[in-house]
Amino acid sequence: MTLATFLDTLTARLPDRAIVTDAGQIEPWLTDWRGRWTGTSAALLQPSTTQEVAAIVQAAELHGIGLVPQGGNSSMVGGATPPSDGSSVILSLRRMNRIRNLAPDHAVVEAGVILHDLQQAAVDVGARFPLDLGARGSATVGGLASTNAGGTQVLRFGTMRAQVLGMEAVLSGGQVHDSLAGLKKDNRGVSLDHLLVGAEGTLGIVTALRLRLVPGAVQRAVAWIGLADPHQALALLRRLEGATGQIEGFELIPSVLLGRVLHHIPQTRAPLAGEWPWHVLIEATAGPADEPPQQLLERLLADAPQVGDAAIAQSEAQAEALWRLRHSISEAERAEGPAAQHDISLPIDRVPGFLTEEARLIEQRFPGTEASGYGHLGDGNVHFHVRAPAGAGRDWADSREGKAVSALVHDLVTAAGGSISAEHGIGQMKKDELARLAPPARIQALRAIKRAMDPQGIFNPGKLID
Amino acid sequence: MTLATFLDTLTARLPDRAIVTDAGQIEPWLTDWRGRWTGTSAALLQPSTTQEVAAIVQAAELHGIGLVPQGGNSSMVGGATPPSDGSSVILSLRRMNRIRNLAPDHAVVEAGVILHDLQQAAVDVGARFPLDLGARGSATVGGLASTNAGGTQVLRFGTMRAQVLGMEAVLSGGQVHDSLAGLKKDNRGVSLDHLLVGAEGTLGIVTALRLRLVPGAVQRAVAWIGLADPHQALALLRRLEGATGQIEGFELIPSVLLGRVLHHIPQTRAPLAGEWPWHVLIEATAGPADEPPQQLLERLLADAPQVGDAAIAQSEAQAEALWRLRHSISEAERAEGPAAQHDISLPIDRVPGFLTEEARLIEQRFPGTEASGYGHLGDGNVHFHVRAPAGAGRDWADSREGKAVSALVHDLVTAAGGSISAEHGIGQMKKDELARLAPPARIQALRAIKRAMDPQGIFNPGKLID
Repeated sequence: MTLATFLDTLTARLPDRAIVTDAGQIEPWLTDWRGRWTGTSAALLQPSTTQEVAAIVQAAELHGIGLVPQGGNSSMVGGATPPSDGSSVILSLRRMNRIRNLAPDHAVVEAGVILHDLQQAAVDVGARFPLDLGARGSATVGGLASTNAGGTQVLRFGTMRAQVLGMEAVLSGGQVHDSLAGLKKDNRGVSLDHLLVGAEGTLGIVTALRLRLVPGAVQRAVAWIGLADPHQALALLRRLEGATGQIEGFELIPSVLLGRVLHHIPQTRAPLAGEWPWHVLIEATAGPADEPPQQLLERLLADAPQVGDAAIAQSEAQAEALWRLRHSISEAERAEGPAAQHDISLPIDRVPGFLTEEARLIEQRFPGTEASGYGHLGDGNVHFHVRAPAGAGRDWADSREGKAVSALVHDLVTAAGGSISAEHGIGQMKKDELARLAPPARIQALRAIKRAMDPQGIFNPGKLID
Repeated sequence: MTLATFLDTLTARLPDRAIVTDAGQIEPWLTDWRGRWTGTSAALLQPSTTQEVAAIVQAAELHGIGLVPQGGNSSMVGGATPPSDGSSVILSLRRMNRIRNLAPDHAVVEAGVILHDLQQAAVDVGARFPLDLGARGSATVGGLASTNAGGTQVLRFGTMRAQVLGMEAVLSGGQVHDSLAGLKKDNRGVSLDHLLVGAEGTLGIVTALRLRLVPGAVQRAVAWIGLADPHQALALLRRLEGATGQIEGFELIPSVLLGRVLHHIPQTRAPLAGEWPWHVLIEATAGPADEPPQQLLERLLADAPQVGDAAIAQSEAQAEALWRLRHSISEAERAEGPAAQHDISLPIDRVPGFLTEEARLIEQRFPGTEASGYGHLGDGNVHFHVRAPAGAGRDWADSREGKAVSALVHDLVTAAGGSISAEHGIGQMKKDELARLAPPARIQALRAIKRAMDPQGIFNPGKLID
């Protein structure tokens, strides 16, 4: 009855097409894109203005209905999937997809603008939006901000937090926070923008963003390095960072994962002639005033003692082929069979040791498993996979052993001063682990802030923190 | 009695020298450095460890005693001065002044480390701490972080927020938040670091920081430009920013204020031969791989149509002399007589209009006043002074007319989409104006967060928000 009166209230206040109740139209949005979580939603709300979002928030608080904000539904942790108890409805921001303003150094865009569309719009004004990730064709800027998304350009430009120059968001009471003017200095108390970045929609609904654009990169160069171990990779990274500010990508890949890509993915081939236990993919970029990136990499890599062997792409096609090896790891891993996957971060100095010593410890504790990590070394962010023993079922990661493996990984990460969520967030998937492992100060503060900003408990219930 | 039992509790838990009750030793810290606010404090607490701060917070919550965190006591808005009702004591962080760790790219320092000491320590490792301001000899890093301090390098390196890589802070319950490991990616819910930056000590006590260091600047060049109006200055800034990333300072100064410096400050002289209504001071820096800064400025300024006349310092002494003109404005203004001063920010495009049209409007509304603004144009941050009519008393700024002038300035700033506090914070001074002018969404959120993070109301009571 409450849900029915909630929808009646909205029907009186919103245009017809903002409320979808046809089950067939709602159904595709009830399950996350990897098919791990499914919920229920009696309606799909799709407002097209900030005022409509405010009306929805007011009605939801009045009737005690949860709102699950959803952009491209590309969460890796079930963050945009509604609960299954019928208490909530999906609030899709996809129809709020206007680019309100575009200049060479910033864009003001609504929450539902898709990352790829923003990237293209930036190119059209000779600029670049400096954040990129695999879900660029579906992920929306509202979701990217709410999850403080990362990706492959973080090393140089930072996470989504560093791109947010201003924000519009609907808070409790339907009140609108608006910092879209983009003041560079504003010390009127705590920053609500920075509070909402990474809050996963649990404190309010982001409706628009003012985002940083950077000068369009004129050239890039990509190199593939073979080296002895991850300690050498870290030393090489330090050396390069000391010599230039033009390094945008520095991806670490163990030979076992490269081998898997070459085995499973068609039309791939080894970038180096010899065998190396570890590999690094490096991307450098340059604007008109910088040293040409290929020359830069040739110069810096020529006498670097950490480099075992190196190949520098001689064409854009070769550069693409090298990146394809890196981007195919996830697909190759899926083809190989079940594994427990972890999105973790560590103090950078601890990454090499974790990928060797802690990885061996896990394999010893769970005989037959294989632990390997790859990813953004410069961010301390590793995608850490533990493969199931031979013969394990497809859902091994959710089995008792798989969960015990993940608990051990999280324990070791925590002991090393790291984070159990580097870039994917907490959502539903890691909520229990956050409650188990986060320091008491963090748990207490997150709970207090949640209750303060969402007294009726309507914003993305069941995610992040209770 | 409550205060007495509070101090008894602390005496039992802390070493003797952490609790000062001698009135003579307390007295210098009861008044802000400009002498505008005075409070009372029965004791001066000066812990030397984080554990001691935690014990103090626990005792304060138990006994309902307010804690006024204080570093160098250099607040411009009464943010570190205790209330006068005897309900609170000063919690000085000055004895927590250890540099815990120092590397070329970061420093881990306790809250009581003085800015100038950090700057020197950075130089000793070939690096630079990229934030500077006039109070460098007394301001502490804990206060700088709690107020999200700005200064003259913000254009290139951002405010204090951009320097904070990690934090240690004592929250309600004496619980310690610790992100000093400095994870580059950590998406375990909202960022407590970003919540505490700019909170003015009202949500917890910052005890240590991990701060960004940048490569030591090898060379700098300073230029003084004469031009026709602030619109030309903004156009010149845009032109320079489009051509180089090496501009660190861009300070706008009207001729009336330059004239006042030349009149009141000994051993100053006009940097240009002719008369110009507006002036700009530009600083560019360069590392080893960059174009030499003097050559850079000569090249970029030579054909810039906005430049009326330009002088580029030919020596470090000349560069210092140009900066001295800028840094002496505050002193010259004090020598000239009473004025109402405002630390405001605006969307950058609105600054030139505000400094001309809104300034004239204020002078018309209050006959005999003179309104002029100067400061960090690139940040949209203007120090906006309205001089009293001839014959006004020294405390004119606090008179009915002075307050009416400030209210009008704040109204105009708010109408232009700006902030009534760009870099000094709210403290006691602007609390009523914040309550009057901030959007309801901001007021509601600040109040809710304050109650959530400080349920006993002990953290810097009477500042920022009630």
